[in-house]
Amino acid sequence: MAAQRDMATADAELAAAAHALLGDRRLIIATNRGPVTFTTAADGSLRPRRGSGGLVTALGHVSQRVPITWIAAAMSEGDRRAAADARLVRRALGDDETVRLRFASVERSVYEQAYNVIANPFLWFLQHQMWNLPERPVIDAATMRAWDRGYVALNDAFAREVLSQARGDREPRIMLHDYHLYLAAEPIRRARPRAILSHFTHIPWPPSSIWQTIAPPIREAIARGLLANNVVGFQTARYAHNFLRMVETFVPDATVDYDASLVKRRRFVTHVRSYPISIDPEATRRVASSRAARRRADQLLGGSREQVIVRVDRLEPSKNILRGFLAFETLLQRNARLRGRISFLAFLVPSRTGLREYGHYGREVQNAVDRINARYGRAGWRPVQLFYENDYAQALAGLSIADVVLVNPLVDGMNLVAKEAVAVSARDAVLVLSETAGAFDQMADGALAVAPADVVGTADALATALAMPREERARRLAKLRRGVEREDITWWLRRQFEDLAELVR
Amino acid sequence: MAAQRDMATADAELAAAAHALLGDRRLIIATNRGPVTFTTAADGSLRPRRGSGGLVTALGHVSQRVPITWIAAAMSEGDRRAAADARLVRRALGDDETVRLRFASVERSVYEQAYNVIANPFLWFLQHQMWNLPERPVIDAATMRAWDRGYVALNDAFAREVLSQARGDREPRIMLHDYHLYLAAEPIRRARPRAILSHFTHIPWPPSSIWQTIAPPIREAIARGLLANNVVGFQTARYAHNFLRMVETFVPDATVDYDASLVKRRRFVTHVRSYPISIDPEATRRVASSRAARRRADQLLGGSREQVIVRVDRLEPSKNILRGFLAFETLLQRNARLRGRISFLAFLVPSRTGLREYGHYGREVQNAVDRINARYGRAGWRPVQLFYENDYAQALAGLSIADVVLVNPLVDGMNLVAKEAVAVSARDAVLVLSETAGAFDQMADGALAVAPADVVGTADALATALAMPREERARRLAKLRRGVEREDITWWLRRQFEDLAELVR
Repeated sequence: MAAQRDMATADAELAAAAHALLGDRRLIIATNRGPVTFTTAADGSLRPRRGSGGLVTALGHVSQRVPITWIAAAMSEGDRRAAADARLVRRALGDDETVRLRFASVERSVYEQAYNVIANPFLWFLQHQMWNLPERPVIDAATMRAWDRGYVALNDAFAREVLSQARGDREPRIMLHDYHLYLAAEPIRRARPRAILSHFTHIPWPPSSIWQTIAPPIREAIARGLLANNVVGFQTARYAHNFLRMVETFVPDATVDYDASLVKRRRFVTHVRSYPISIDPEATRRVASSRAARRRADQLLGGSREQVIVRVDRLEPSKNILRGFLAFETLLQRNARLRGRISFLAFLVPSRTGLREYGHYGREVQNAVDRINARYGRAGWRPVQLFYENDYAQALAGLSIADVVLVNPLVDGMNLVAKEAVAVSARDAVLVLSETAGAFDQMADGALAVAPADVVGTADALATALAMPREERARRLAKLRRGVEREDITWWLRRQFEDLAELVR
Repeated sequence: MAAQRDMATADAELAAAAHALLGDRRLIIATNRGPVTFTTAADGSLRPRRGSGGLVTALGHVSQRVPITWIAAAMSEGDRRAAADARLVRRALGDDETVRLRFASVERSVYEQAYNVIANPFLWFLQHQMWNLPERPVIDAATMRAWDRGYVALNDAFAREVLSQARGDREPRIMLHDYHLYLAAEPIRRARPRAILSHFTHIPWPPSSIWQTIAPPIREAIARGLLANNVVGFQTARYAHNFLRMVETFVPDATVDYDASLVKRRRFVTHVRSYPISIDPEATRRVASSRAARRRADQLLGGSREQVIVRVDRLEPSKNILRGFLAFETLLQRNARLRGRISFLAFLVPSRTGLREYGHYGREVQNAVDRINARYGRAGWRPVQLFYENDYAQALAGLSIADVVLVNPLVDGMNLVAKEAVAVSARDAVLVLSETAGAFDQMADGALAVAPADVVGTADALATALAMPREERARRLAKLRRGVEREDITWWLRRQFEDLAELVR
């Protein structure tokens, strides 16, 4: 009851913040991936496919409260047709325009350059510090071409579509998202000097020494591009600080005020804030408590031993899956009494299988699992069980039965698995969490901390977690759960709306 | 004449600072590698071999001004015999004890752990950000054993030898050096609370997000170990700032004062300073103007085309040699008129050939050179000439005839080649310099800046340098040379002596 009243209050506060920001406007949101992508059916009509991913889920919550115009990149031929004719979209999605979907459309080859040369292999790797720096990246002529003709062009297309949707409004409210759209604010700002513009970066913001390795035209365009926003948001205070340092280092005509966390440039002020993203705990629990998920949880528990370690991740090098298994191997090696008594369930979602590094990393992970199972497995006990598929309900089922949840990314903007685990745990799971995950800044108190390269320390943390008395497990989980309930996705949205509404006044 | 008077003044100032610090004491210096290492001759006597390396050269200058006791790690069996019996050293080196040489001696296996498991493959790679982080480092049981039984033990042995040399002195003056000796100050401080202790790190100090990936016991021991010094010195203000941030992040009982650049812990104050290391320009020029070096310079010039690009580096991944050649390749590809008219002379010194990564990197470099020479070379013109040997005079000869000197490290504590090039240039060389080299902080004004991963930008900088009018070249070089003359090795030493003497008062 109390929880429901809290939620009602939270909803009311969010609605009030949205109204203060928007009045009777629509909120314009721009993201690379939209909530729907289209294929062309045999009869020529557009067939929608709902998207997934953390960002889509999070922003889906916005649309429940305020009317939004959502601009996404046209990724398929169907999307490009939809971009050309809005009626096709209406025909496919129905007349409900709570979410008005639009596309920023560029030629396929332009999009490929922006997405498959710059955003994913370049910016994602850079910001997750995933490079072997002595050899990569090599910023050659092809990279610079993809930047100019792909990334810049895509951002311009987004700006044009935003301006088209904001027609007639001198002060549109616009929220841009993530590493695909660092440059969109500047052309919008030029055309609408009084626009209220924000950008939120979902992934980590590395220190200047990392930005310093790459081509000055790119890093300066990114810094200046972001400074065209009224508010630039990051997952953590550390990332916000790194951005301020980057501006100080690379934008000589900007003045950085660390105490007020803002940047002044030609009398324009950009506020630099942190808004840790979160989940909808209630909705997450609904999925986990569906009949199918509960049945799956029982099966998983039946197939496991006394204690269960669980991880859920995209199969992605920054998630540090390999060292997680090495830590588990060390645990078994050092604690003979655990052999045959614990199960490690790893739910790995296929990801970016077209990138060479990901394929290589996947094979390394598989090799480690095979080695551990061969070395320690015995009749009736397979130490590691790998589930390689995209099954959200199953992953939540796994988290719900865990004694220990291992979240040890190399670096991570936030990491929502840590929060989902806390929301759905039915067995007082202990969270083993990397200090380098954005989530650590909120969850340090209840979690067991590990450093991502520290395989010995991670093995020790797993041992501590497995041996932890039930009361302490319950106490820690309760503390973490209170945090996730309080700082949920509604809180994430509301704080942004409030900060932007403040600027309107 | 003016220069000579300046040098005499500088010498007098240095002597005064040394006297203020030392009184009639000897200065105790501790470094991993000493000025001399010993082998055992057939007759059982010790045979000395003079060492090289930037640190030995720099510290050699100290001994010209003040009596020092120099403690180095016993690296050979001869060193271990010397450690056991100081008379053997005197017999081998003569009675002149301006430099009193002593050894910190541990068993060979202990030293191997400290040097070949921790210092070089771990700390060096960490601080130069040379890892492919998704896979390395793996801090496993062997790493932690090498840390405890190797690195910690070696530092303890250094502390014991320092204390033994400081016998009877309640306030010895001690300067510790570099990444082999982060932990030596603490045991010295415990035994001599009033000692004047400094530590200088010659290599880069990365941001906290890098330290955050490794085992907490290691990074905390490093931070706390350094805080036992009165002064902790770094090459640049950036590195000093990174150290302060590291202390703030990982040493909860310390208070960081960024404005005063100091750390307080239990009423003990550690000053955090930057002292950019340098060269002795006069001595460098003496080598470059020897008859042999001048003859070699003429030969090199005779074998080259109209314009000459030169690089001098240890063959070391952090030096970014590969991208340097890729930039040269891009230059030739884009500027057909340069083909046949420029020569790239690369003087590469063999380094750490036992480490797998170095061998691999060397092959990649050789492949790039072969490809460029095959693609663009023609009868009578080999675009790249590679000199793979340790010949200091030849390298200086190369620098003296350069039109352009390329210094593009991925990251570098200082980089003395940039300063040597400026000292010996006979043809108004243009310096193309990485922003990520420590030297950049002093030389930004006269050099052409490049970002290390930016192959296109580096090619552009080479083109700009090659096309630069003679007057601008001369103007830039003169400015750089004034800086190197002013902020030379004597200046580096004097500022440290003065800061330490201040603490004595």
